[in-house]
Amino acid sequence: MIKFDMKNSLLEKEKFKSISKFLKSYLENIKKQNQGFHAVIDDQKTIKSIENFSQKFKGKFSHIVVLAIGGSALGTICLQQSLKHLYENELKSGKFPKLHVLDNIDPALIQAIEDIIDYKKTLFIVVTKSGTTPETLAQYFYFRSKTDAKKLDPKKHFVFITDPKKGLLREIANKEKIPSFEVPENVGGRFSVLTPVGLLPASLIGINIKKLITGAKKMRQKFLSKSTEENLPFQLAAIQYSLNKKGKTITVLMPYSQKLIRLADWYRQLLAESIGKKLDNQGKAVNVGLTPVNALGVTDQHSQLQLYNEGPNDKLIIFIETLKNGPTLKIPLPKNSDSDINFLKNTTFNKLFQVEKIATEQVLTANNRPNITIQIDQVNEESLGELFMLFEGSIAFLGEFFNINAYDQPGVELSKVLTKKMLSAKIN
Amino acid sequence: MIKFDMKNSLLEKEKFKSISKFLKSYLENIKKQNQGFHAVIDDQKTIKSIENFSQKFKGKFSHIVVLAIGGSALGTICLQQSLKHLYENELKSGKFPKLHVLDNIDPALIQAIEDIIDYKKTLFIVVTKSGTTPETLAQYFYFRSKTDAKKLDPKKHFVFITDPKKGLLREIANKEKIPSFEVPENVGGRFSVLTPVGLLPASLIGINIKKLITGAKKMRQKFLSKSTEENLPFQLAAIQYSLNKKGKTITVLMPYSQKLIRLADWYRQLLAESIGKKLDNQGKAVNVGLTPVNALGVTDQHSQLQLYNEGPNDKLIIFIETLKNGPTLKIPLPKNSDSDINFLKNTTFNKLFQVEKIATEQVLTANNRPNITIQIDQVNEESLGELFMLFEGSIAFLGEFFNINAYDQPGVELSKVLTKKMLSAKIN
Repeated sequence: MIKFDMKNSLLEKEKFKSISKFLKSYLENIKKQNQGFHAVIDDQKTIKSIENFSQKFKGKFSHIVVLAIGGSALGTICLQQSLKHLYENELKSGKFPKLHVLDNIDPALIQAIEDIIDYKKTLFIVVTKSGTTPETLAQYFYFRSKTDAKKLDPKKHFVFITDPKKGLLREIANKEKIPSFEVPENVGGRFSVLTPVGLLPASLIGINIKKLITGAKKMRQKFLSKSTEENLPFQLAAIQYSLNKKGKTITVLMPYSQKLIRLADWYRQLLAESIGKKLDNQGKAVNVGLTPVNALGVTDQHSQLQLYNEGPNDKLIIFIETLKNGPTLKIPLPKNSDSDINFLKNTTFNKLFQVEKIATEQVLTANNRPNITIQIDQVNEESLGELFMLFEGSIAFLGEFFNINAYDQPGVELSKVLTKKMLSAKIN
Repeated sequence: MIKFDMKNSLLEKEKFKSISKFLKSYLENIKKQNQGFHAVIDDQKTIKSIENFSQKFKGKFSHIVVLAIGGSALGTICLQQSLKHLYENELKSGKFPKLHVLDNIDPALIQAIEDIIDYKKTLFIVVTKSGTTPETLAQYFYFRSKTDAKKLDPKKHFVFITDPKKGLLREIANKEKIPSFEVPENVGGRFSVLTPVGLLPASLIGINIKKLITGAKKMRQKFLSKSTEENLPFQLAAIQYSLNKKGKTITVLMPYSQKLIRLADWYRQLLAESIGKKLDNQGKAVNVGLTPVNALGVTDQHSQLQLYNEGPNDKLIIFIETLKNGPTLKIPLPKNSDSDINFLKNTTFNKLFQVEKIATEQVLTANNRPNITIQIDQVNEESLGELFMLFEGSIAFLGEFFNINAYDQPGVELSKVLTKKMLSAKIN
């Protein structure tokens, strides 16, 4: 159950009403675009085959290494952080394989992972939607040469997640009969967390992917609703857009939950790549975009809050509040304790955590800094599925508001071309 | 050895020259302020006593848990990430204790740490400059009640780092003879990484703190230089300030080094809290500030670069380039490989990593997006010491440029008061 609290958005009600009239036409446009992120969660067959795969390999691996970058990596990182033990990989009696996502090509990182895995007990999940991402392919060649040298069967140590037909990875899968899953053609990398890209690694480390889908479906119902009251993704987008017009160019996502710290990283890509665009739908240069900033409550009260309260008034802060954070833990004050800390008497970490969020919210509001709160019961599979769909849906609406294509990324092509050119020049 | 490359800052030379004339007077002001961050590195006695302490406890602990938040935590997190193995806590044959920094009060986090530590073999380092930070004190009371229940000697399982005289933590240290170190009065929390706050945990996990200091001293010499050519901290501040006047309100710190990913978090606090201010030195409301954004190369090319290239032109991007990243690792292309990936032939991860940085830089520049590069040989104690002092020094100059107090944080007081009020109301 997700609830919105928008009382501190500092938007005039009339403004919000006047913008609400766009819901129906935007929704029609979105449906016409035939983007798969909201349809893919109906794919029962794939979910079944993921569950079969992870059942089949249960207990066989000590480590899973995901070779992926950007949208192929961030959802998985978020799923692990949100739904597993906060120190999962350091637990002695881990029931599930230890998962690591290698989302960089720094040689220091590649060397480091080799120090902690046992190749014989490691499964590599290679994820690239296009099947051509050079960073991920380079990693694949590297680890494949290692398993080959150790005479390990690639069919048992690799699984690919890539395009159904195109790309080098699909070719290799076909030729060498390496197990593989598909990213549907009409689901972009940054929208792919609820496809095998996120679901396969999640399932392999014991996350209940059916419940993730249940949550996502609940939110999809809201996303497709023509009622402004019900359509939370529309509400979120409408607030972000309206405030952007008033100079709030930065969106801070600040969950009060250690488990959700990586959700903000996932959202950073979604918002930055989808809405940061030079051209509008008519080809006019507009250079729009919202700059995403990740923050964490209460931690970043001691790092970023000074700026949010007193610096330039250019931010919308989105809090995520969880009603239940772990067990109830008392703060055991010593007897005869100092009067300065008397306020901590008879209280709990849970209460302190909650009260600090409220205080932060009140002060921001008093300083005329817009903020909204997304409230969830607790961090679990279902609420995370809801959050994924909430944010993905809001991006679709933001694309409409800004009149841009939210699904491409033309601004990163040139550096890819340059990279190829520079490396090729070295060869010839 | 740190080098600057400012050719892509897109600042006119005349502009930079005209601003250079302020160096001498700003430097005089800074010296008058008597801030300790650049003097504290001469404190040989403290360094010696830290080394003695860690020598004394060598081999005695399996885990070190740092109870701290904000400036008391971020430097330590950065030191560990930058200078230890990237999967240090998952290595089987760890020579040093496993270090964890508990910089949040989420009950889920506090519960989680208990699942991986053995109290009998754990040292708690409690860090609060003021000695009154409620989050850290609450954590201390919690873990202290646990060790008391287990009849463990607090003098052997706790060490405090706090104000020399004031505050509850200092009182407890005096009363119970708990070992303690001092944060000099004139060193603010966010400037304290080169005091016991950062140095003690670093030394306990085997980091050479003398070399950190050596690096910091090298950069201090530049920081105190009256030559604009030599004074890198001044150059950095001058660029940030001049570009801010041209609408670049966001500073992105983007190291191309997995080891430096947490340096950007440390810098986020330093920049946000120091420069995000409502009032200038004359008490006039100015609401200045630079919003820090953390990014990582090449990872965030696949997440943030689209926005940086095509979105609003409101950012300065600071790259950190390291000439040596781990070992040389070849990319072993399969025979007869696809022509699409031919450019990866006869190359290394090191080369690809470097070339992608150059390509990113060139495209940003072509899009008229200012960027500068800080180049270091490799990530080690000395270069990290240099980087800490570079950024701290640049903040001192930014304070002068913006004509604000870079060392206070008045904007977070009210939420602290409100928190106390709300919790006290519950009691009465």
